[in-house]
Amino acid sequence: MIQPSGIILDLDGTVYRGDELIPGARRAIEWLREQALPLVFVTNALESCAEHAAKLARFGIPAERDDVVTAPLVLTRYLGRHMPGATLFTISDPPLVEQLGPSFRLSEDPNEIDAVVVSCDRTLDYRKLNVAFQALRRGARFFAVNADAVCPVPGGEIPDAGAVIGALEGSSNRKVDLVAGKPSPLMAEAALERLGRPASECLMVGDSLATDVMMGQRAGMTTALVLTGVTRQADLSEAPVQPDHVLESIAEVPRLLGG
Amino acid sequence: MIQPSGIILDLDGTVYRGDELIPGARRAIEWLREQALPLVFVTNALESCAEHAAKLARFGIPAERDDVVTAPLVLTRYLGRHMPGATLFTISDPPLVEQLGPSFRLSEDPNEIDAVVVSCDRTLDYRKLNVAFQALRRGARFFAVNADAVCPVPGGEIPDAGAVIGALEGSSNRKVDLVAGKPSPLMAEAALERLGRPASECLMVGDSLATDVMMGQRAGMTTALVLTGVTRQADLSEAPVQPDHVLESIAEVPRLLGG
Repeated sequence: MIQPSGIILDLDGTVYRGDELIPGARRAIEWLREQALPLVFVTNALESCAEHAAKLARFGIPAERDDVVTAPLVLTRYLGRHMPGATLFTISDPPLVEQLGPSFRLSEDPNEIDAVVVSCDRTLDYRKLNVAFQALRRGARFFAVNADAVCPVPGGEIPDAGAVIGALEGSSNRKVDLVAGKPSPLMAEAALERLGRPASECLMVGDSLATDVMMGQRAGMTTALVLTGVTRQADLSEAPVQPDHVLESIAEVPRLLGG
Repeated sequence: MIQPSGIILDLDGTVYRGDELIPGARRAIEWLREQALPLVFVTNALESCAEHAAKLARFGIPAERDDVVTAPLVLTRYLGRHMPGATLFTISDPPLVEQLGPSFRLSEDPNEIDAVVVSCDRTLDYRKLNVAFQALRRGARFFAVNADAVCPVPGGEIPDAGAVIGALEGSSNRKVDLVAGKPSPLMAEAALERLGRPASECLMVGDSLATDVMMGQRAGMTTALVLTGVTRQADLSEAPVQPDHVLESIAEVPRLLGG
């Protein structure tokens, strides 16, 4: 039994998988809220905080926009603070551009691009890669919303941001300057700020060793891995990062907390 | 003064640059042939040996198909020996497919692809990357014609095979199994076989530290870097690989050999 004072929950693979709620997730979240434990959802997915909140509500889990911290939100805040008014070039599926908002200009001219921002892009092509390559060669900053190698889809997985980052690193002789999403410390900071609790008192629950558990561990949180997403029990023996707790699913979180 | 018994010459950046002959190249090659020194041209470019020979002939340098060893030739021979009749999926500019010849079947079905073969592809898109990714995930071999990061074009450089390799390595959790082109030992072996001389008696002349000089040095050849291509004198001080000789251009080769 552990007694955290704040809870960080991953979404896809933890609360739901694609369009299906994980059995017991709704009840577990209700229980956490009954204990008056501050709770925030974190995700590397590109949709906006409001869209994620709406999706949770459709599953019967009431949520506000501010209950969700997304990788695009973290990157947009970082850019707003460190490169206000910057001219960007994005290689990404559409939801990212909508969220960069009016504070940034977009350009396809390598000479005026201040930063290249990449994520998963299912319409990736050579022309976009070459625009980003030319901008990086001229000194543009290189940011990734997330660095996930693959993205789960019904029936399997497809290449995610890792493909775009690899293509640009493999040609430009540049390394990505900053990744905003999990396991980035920026993401942990944003979540902790919402909770108003120190990392050492928080529990991070997620299905990925490389993103959820890694982020929690680096930040000094207690970590719980759930086996309802990308990680199988058998994957654990050889993993370089080990969670503090392993749960069949989020449904077991109340019991972990003595409920 | 050195006395090699065989000469290996890189093409682009050494004998010509794009569509312009390097001044003195024709005379230097004539001189080498007057000394009855066996000579072979090597290149990572995708065009066929016959096309390269024809290009040399247009510059007034008589050449036969067998005077040229290309990366696609080396890879095609390797595949013919180790995976005869294999089903391939290629991500590459067009000249590669023409050279794979009738001995290989091409497929876009990840379930029947035995090997993914990549090079520079200026029509790269997400669909192709995903076909290759799915094939690699199912155990297909992973071969690269070449691994050059960039390709010189008039006015600059564009992403080469390194972008495709990076995209697949960054998403599939696989590393490329074999690179055929320079600095691969396969390329050195093919060139030495043509010359019929041991590596220790051969001189490798090229403009790239990472491909030409690296290949020659690893194989035990004497190496001469020419400054008419991708390398500047200033690049040498920090380079991890150092040539035995540095020449302004191929025009100085006869003098290096006592001519």
